[in-house]
Amino acid sequence: MNFHKELEQRTTSLEEVIRAYLPKEEGYQKTVLEAMNYSLQAGGKRLRPMMLLEIFHAYGGDEALVQPFMAAIEMIHTYSLVHDDLPEMDNDELRRGLPTTHVKYGQAMAVLAGDALLNYSVEILLNAVLEETNPAIQKRMCYAMQVLYHKAGIYGMIGGQTKDVEAEKKGETSDLEQILFIDNCKTAALIQASLMIGAILAGASEEDIASLEKIGYNLGVAFQIQDDILDITSTTEELGKPVGSDEKNHKMTYVSYRGLAGAKEDQKKMSEEAVRLLGTLSATGSLEFLAELMKHLMERKM
Amino acid sequence: MNFHKELEQRTTSLEEVIRAYLPKEEGYQKTVLEAMNYSLQAGGKRLRPMMLLEIFHAYGGDEALVQPFMAAIEMIHTYSLVHDDLPEMDNDELRRGLPTTHVKYGQAMAVLAGDALLNYSVEILLNAVLEETNPAIQKRMCYAMQVLYHKAGIYGMIGGQTKDVEAEKKGETSDLEQILFIDNCKTAALIQASLMIGAILAGASEEDIASLEKIGYNLGVAFQIQDDILDITSTTEELGKPVGSDEKNHKMTYVSYRGLAGAKEDQKKMSEEAVRLLGTLSATGSLEFLAELMKHLMERKM
Repeated sequence: MNFHKELEQRTTSLEEVIRAYLPKEEGYQKTVLEAMNYSLQAGGKRLRPMMLLEIFHAYGGDEALVQPFMAAIEMIHTYSLVHDDLPEMDNDELRRGLPTTHVKYGQAMAVLAGDALLNYSVEILLNAVLEETNPAIQKRMCYAMQVLYHKAGIYGMIGGQTKDVEAEKKGETSDLEQILFIDNCKTAALIQASLMIGAILAGASEEDIASLEKIGYNLGVAFQIQDDILDITSTTEELGKPVGSDEKNHKMTYVSYRGLAGAKEDQKKMSEEAVRLLGTLSATGSLEFLAELMKHLMERKM
Repeated sequence: MNFHKELEQRTTSLEEVIRAYLPKEEGYQKTVLEAMNYSLQAGGKRLRPMMLLEIFHAYGGDEALVQPFMAAIEMIHTYSLVHDDLPEMDNDELRRGLPTTHVKYGQAMAVLAGDALLNYSVEILLNAVLEETNPAIQKRMCYAMQVLYHKAGIYGMIGGQTKDVEAEKKGETSDLEQILFIDNCKTAALIQASLMIGAILAGASEEDIASLEKIGYNLGVAFQIQDDILDITSTTEELGKPVGSDEKNHKMTYVSYRGLAGAKEDQKKMSEEAVRLLGTLSATGSLEFLAELMKHLMERKM
């Protein structure tokens, strides 16, 4: 397998799926639709829909079923970035080398575009649920939605962001438990959701779904540690956003707690644990690309 | 019927329903949970859950089924107020006589609390859908959710807010079509959703659901016109928030377009049309309280 070629092909086809779910930019409310589509199309690795699809295929699912979920999880991820970049939050003006949504469309429109992306993700999924005629599949879809919004909410992503914002504002010294809470909720939760949803929709066992939750935890925290490492060791050019922002914001990260070498070591362990657990799944399809992707993410420079 | 006594009793029992769905204020993410609960418990008329329940009862439904929807629609209404009050939006510091959420908890937490309320509404409803064992009722619940998030989204509430924010910022002269778009989307959409959801969950006919959508339109626009009238004719004390904010913000409203007398006339017509349509429904239960409530809303001073 030529991993980089595969990655490129898959990303291109994911872009097409996402594009198919963008709202039309028309009507009195056109600006918010433009802001939604701008933020959704501003690049990104499309990791969450990619992982969702890989797992779904590994369990032998039929692709049409997962497409709305792939679009929805990317909308949720994107809305969180749009709100996170706001001046009252992280105050970032650049993301993936482009002006952030509030820089381009103003702060009010960025708040509304974020709200709109979250709400629209729900609409897309409910439309899909109601179009489905098989009650068993409908039930799986509702279960997958439950996992998605639970992981995106106060006991997942929003919970993590809350503690992250507070720790920053107060400049408080966080302990490892707090840092892990933030990394787990803020970053790992949506990765867990991606993997779990792929399995749920394909009808995988509860045992495998639970294993995928663990894989998502290890992978997500390892991914966030890599982010924190890059914030120190990378350049603005490589990263497409300013480096050193954690230090600027007096933010305690896994790296500032464990040191660069310790963080790298833990990150490696978690990433290896994720790959090991992948091998224990009962999926009959290939997980080779997903395992390669996981390794690739841990060695990434951006 | 002693309307005011009935109204008080119903509001008290609605407060209890809403309280039952508040998240526990504990864990690392405690602040966002406090901010959610603060904004949800800061009073309000609880109109949307009240209308939802009245319609549901009129079609003979069993109350347990609608409670999560009552809580969810109030969460959606509340999140829109929290975000609408932000400095980059309407910049309001007072609502219902209390400091707005960003004044009390800071701007970042108000953004997150709004996001959290919207997301949590979805969680509550999906939990209810998955607990339901009757597939026919499950399907109704999904249909009701579809209506709710459609009316709350870019083709409803968020769409209206977008145009409202823009019209204000640009100080542009709006025509009546634009003003009606804003009033319909920003205010009427969630009232339509309340009425429609009550009927959907109780198994009403598509014809009645369509009539309720019209009733919600007339009632919602009339309600918004009354809001605009009060912004001119009321006092801060009566209203619990600053008056004259529309003029301060150079905002074109139905009143500034049609004049006070013309607006009052149109408001009366729409309100009467809503009450007339109520009489055409095939519901077998009493709609007396709802009709009284509609009249009361049009004569309100706050």
